[in-house]
Amino acid sequence: MPKQKMLEDLFLDTLKDIYYAERQIVKALPKMAKAAGSDELRTAFENHLEETHGQIDRLQQVFEIFGKRAQGKTCEAIQWLLEEGEEIIEEFSESPALDAGLISAGNAVEHYEIARYGTLKTWATLLKMPEAAKLLDANLQEEHKADELLTKLATTSVNKMAA
Amino acid sequence: MPKQKMLEDLFLDTLKDIYYAERQIVKALPKMAKAAGSDELRTAFENHLEETHGQIDRLQQVFEIFGKRAQGKTCEAIQWLLEEGEEIIEEFSESPALDAGLISAGNAVEHYEIARYGTLKTWATLLKMPEAAKLLDANLQEEHKADELLTKLATTSVNKMAA
Repeated sequence: MPKQKMLEDLFLDTLKDIYYAERQIVKALPKMAKAAGSDELRTAFENHLEETHGQIDRLQQVFEIFGKRAQGKTCEAIQWLLEEGEEIIEEFSESPALDAGLISAGNAVEHYEIARYGTLKTWATLLKMPEAAKLLDANLQEEHKADELLTKLATTSVNKMAA
Repeated sequence: MPKQKMLEDLFLDTLKDIYYAERQIVKALPKMAKAAGSDELRTAFENHLEETHGQIDRLQQVFEIFGKRAQGKTCEAIQWLLEEGEEIIEEFSESPALDAGLISAGNAVEHYEIARYGTLKTWATLLKMPEAAKLLDANLQEEHKADELLTKLATTSVNKMAA
């Protein structure tokens, strides 16, 4: 009989999922920054790239606390969300709506991460790993801020050019 | 020379995307409700199914305001997020961590929708469709509440069984 799967298994699977996602995001952000039409949006993507490196570092610490090797696990959902950004760059490269599309793709990625970090933080607490919960919460708060900044750019300067 | 793509094109594409997603979610929620171990979680999924029917109705009104036929467009990201729920049901069917996994999958789907509705609401305002923005905001608020309820269930009764 196979070993019963427990919350520890869910935690590790989801940790590997977001670790994979963050490393894909590190590859995608420079392309999105390069494509951005406005300086504000380019800076937002560049700053978030810096943050993402720090988030990967925190995830490696969480793996260590959990006693496992840092390892990614392919996640198709994030691949498709990032693919959407690439499609926007291709289809809207000459359009005044380019930045609106990039922001939309960025918001979708941020919300993917917000869902994952929220879940992992809850589970870390239930599994009695307060230090891990703290690290995951730090990432969660950064994603919230990144999402809010993109939303602000969507409602202020950037989208006005496209309308 | 092809016609330049504009914010109107992004709006319609994204509206079709979430319309497709909501109709997939209508198919997935009964399976998640059926699999749920706790009464609270089952009720949460069942109530959200009812809400989702109302959301689809609002989306049809938005298509009408925009002067287009209501039509879905396949979105691979939501397919994979829903596939994750199916995998949880399969792999954790006998586990005390089943509900924790279902909540995690549910949160990921809610955040996908929150991102989409936030974007669409902003664009509807920029495109001078206040009635559409109101309808999209109604869906957005429902998704926020559904996400909060799942998060509450994750941190209170449900996950404690799994830890």
